[in-house]
Amino acid sequence: VANSVSPDLHIFDLTHEIPPFNIWEAAFRLHQTAAYWPAGTVFVSVVDPGVGTERKSVVLKTKSGHYFVTPDNGTLTLVAENLGIAAVREIDETVNRRADSELNYTFHGRDVYAFTGARLAAGVITFEQVGPELPPQVVSIPYQKPRFENGVVYGAIPVLDPQYGNIWTNIDREVFNQLSAQNGEEVAVKISRGKQVVFEGRIPFVNTFGDVPEGKTLLYLNSLNTVSFAINMGNFAEAYGIGSGPEWGVEICR
Amino acid sequence: VANSVSPDLHIFDLTHEIPPFNIWEAAFRLHQTAAYWPAGTVFVSVVDPGVGTERKSVVLKTKSGHYFVTPDNGTLTLVAENLGIAAVREIDETVNRRADSELNYTFHGRDVYAFTGARLAAGVITFEQVGPELPPQVVSIPYQKPRFENGVVYGAIPVLDPQYGNIWTNIDREVFNQLSAQNGEEVAVKISRGKQVVFEGRIPFVNTFGDVPEGKTLLYLNSLNTVSFAINMGNFAEAYGIGSGPEWGVEICR
Amino acid sequence: VANSVSPDLHIFDLTHEIPPFNIWEAAFRLHQTAAYWPAGTVFVSVVDPGVGTERKSVVLKTKSGHYFVTPDNGTLTLVAENLGIAAVREIDETVNRRADSELNYTFHGRDVYAFTGARLAAGVITFEQVGPELPPQVVSIPYQKPRFENGVVYGAIPVLDPQYGNIWTNIDREVFNQLSAQNGEEVAVKISRGKQVVFEGRIPFVNTFGDVPEGKTLLYLNSLNTVSFAINMGNFAEAYGIGSGPEWGVEICR
Repeated sequence: VANSVSPDLHIFDLTHEIPPFNIWEAAFRLHQTAAYWPAGTVFVSVVDPGVGTERKSVVLKTKSGHYFVTPDNGTLTLVAENLGIAAVREIDETVNRRADSELNYTFHGRDVYAFTGARLAAGVITFEQVGPELPPQVVSIPYQKPRFENGVVYGAIPVLDPQYGNIWTNIDREVFNQLSAQNGEEVAVKISRGKQVVFEGRIPFVNTFGDVPEGKTLLYLNSLNTVSFAINMGNFAEAYGIGSGPEWGVEICR
Repeated sequence: VANSVSPDLHIFDLTHEIPPFNIWEAAFRLHQTAAYWPAGTVFVSVVDPGVGTERKSVVLKTKSGHYFVTPDNGTLTLVAENLGIAAVREIDETVNRRADSELNYTFHGRDVYAFTGARLAAGVITFEQVGPELPPQVVSIPYQKPRFENGVVYGAIPVLDPQYGNIWTNIDREVFNQLSAQNGEEVAVKISRGKQVVFEGRIPFVNTFGDVPEGKTLLYLNSLNTVSFAINMGNFAEAYGIGSGPEWGVEICR
Repeated sequence: VANSVSPDLHIFDLTHEIPPFNIWEAAFRLHQTAAYWPAGTVFVSVVDPGVGTERKSVVLKTKSGHYFVTPDNGTLTLVAENLGIAAVREIDETVNRRADSELNYTFHGRDVYAFTGARLAAGVITFEQVGPELPPQVVSIPYQKPRFENGVVYGAIPVLDPQYGNIWTNIDREVFNQLSAQNGEEVAVKISRGKQVVFEGRIPFVNTFGDVPEGKTLLYLNSLNTVSFAINMGNFAEAYGIGSGPEWGVEICR
């Protein structure tokens, strides 16, 4: 559909591996990748369990100059927060919809989102021609933000690094630094699902995998500069039964 | 190989997820996607359980102006039927074969099909230069066409929507409309594998997933405008053990 | 990251399906594909279990004019051997590293390799500007080379064809021809893991799958012109429990 709008578009598949209906992970994957793309890039994201219900179809323009075409169902939580909202417009489906697709109620990804994203990227329509402007806000999923309090760092596990079983927290370098842990020092880590403690132990804070022997745990700052846990040449998530999502919490102290 | 023919070709991977040797699914996936691409697009499809036997290597030009490069083993069943046959040519492997690949008997996908498709798409050869013209027909896989008879709609399940477990039938809107089912009405659905009834129940005919509560079944028209069955936020195929292929049949009445 | 260097680069995903930490398979997949790409192509390969340790980050230029950007950890074993070493340079990370990524110790794939590969491919830097030249050698993984001796052909199983369960050996046509097996002749095949014989039987040497009945074994020359074993319409690896890697050996005699 996008190629039919313009064969000159550069089209990339960021991922088709979001678990079905997992809006939170869609939000995280957009957050993880968007800033690496130049301003003007148009992202189309369709994790849409509510297709055919009253959620709005929107295009978010961020202060960084990126565009996001998506159902406004929480998918925009993290990019709105991190890149800033410049403006939000609702897609006017009377204009921005693939011809002869009016009888399709279930495939907005193809008929509305891909079509509108391609037309915006190709310059067939301007941002203003997407549709009427909405108040500068998006639907947001509540989540536990990282904080340092009384010698303890608190955070959540937004997502795993599934290929390797590494645990990615949302505790960024700045918050973690408040703990004043030294490079090489073992810190006390507790990982819980709701009130149930799933992992408790001491893990050395190091730069990288090769700093610990094979099979040993490590705490490191990952590619997004957030605290992560791993086993060198192993799979931390499998070894200790760790998952991700809003119900997973992390506490770290010295 | 295609890039070596011309680095300026636009190359897209439609799918590498056809189950091994499943010619029928290849036929369906081509049918599902071809019409969204502009006239002149060259499709290369290699599901080729008979590699090295006497099946012909052909290029089909459809009346819609699309080209299909493939073994003529049933892969063309649905695009020939739906887009119309303009002409069929047999690939002349004395000309249209990657240099120095004569000793390879098993990798026609790379040495003949990708190579010929790329040369045709890049304008290195014309359609006429593919090889000699054949009679305007292709090998077709027999399948149950949809029909309405004595108050019952009959059809088949050509394919599943595997990510979500939705059941896609080949009953198009026009045939389904002969049942005169009203929006919101429950209809009686029977799904069989050969003579064995696998599912029997009443399912509401609605526009989209959000029209039924979570966990409930629905009958809707999918992205190809054919009758489909699903569970809102669930997996119909898993829940009831439904598969796809020529042996799966569907009956619907009011 | 590569697109940020230049939006005009042609970027292809050769594979993201190398099993974690499997340097040998990375080496094989590069070997399998590189020669099909034009001279000047830049390959970025990051299977890097030693990230953050003292392995060097290098760019290999082969005599064929291809470039390989990778940790020098064995990944270059086969392309260096087959395409020839023209020169090796160590990546100077003081220049060739994504801005503001100095605090990331674990994501060289993004910050160093993809970045350097894109700059080299886009002409932002020359090969000389990668960094200082090293001696013309790379880290090599030892492996069993194919040979003919006293009427027996010996070889290894570098990799499987996982989708179909075919067994790919490293015995090329030239070595196999020394056995003087006739087309259609059954040869005696022994496959071992270390000292344990896993398969022993007679298999016909034929051109292609269709030359034997469905369900029967065959020995054929695969797309790389090396001896392979398969079951027509079946899965040899599953049927007999065969794997791949340095510990798997093959013997063939008449």
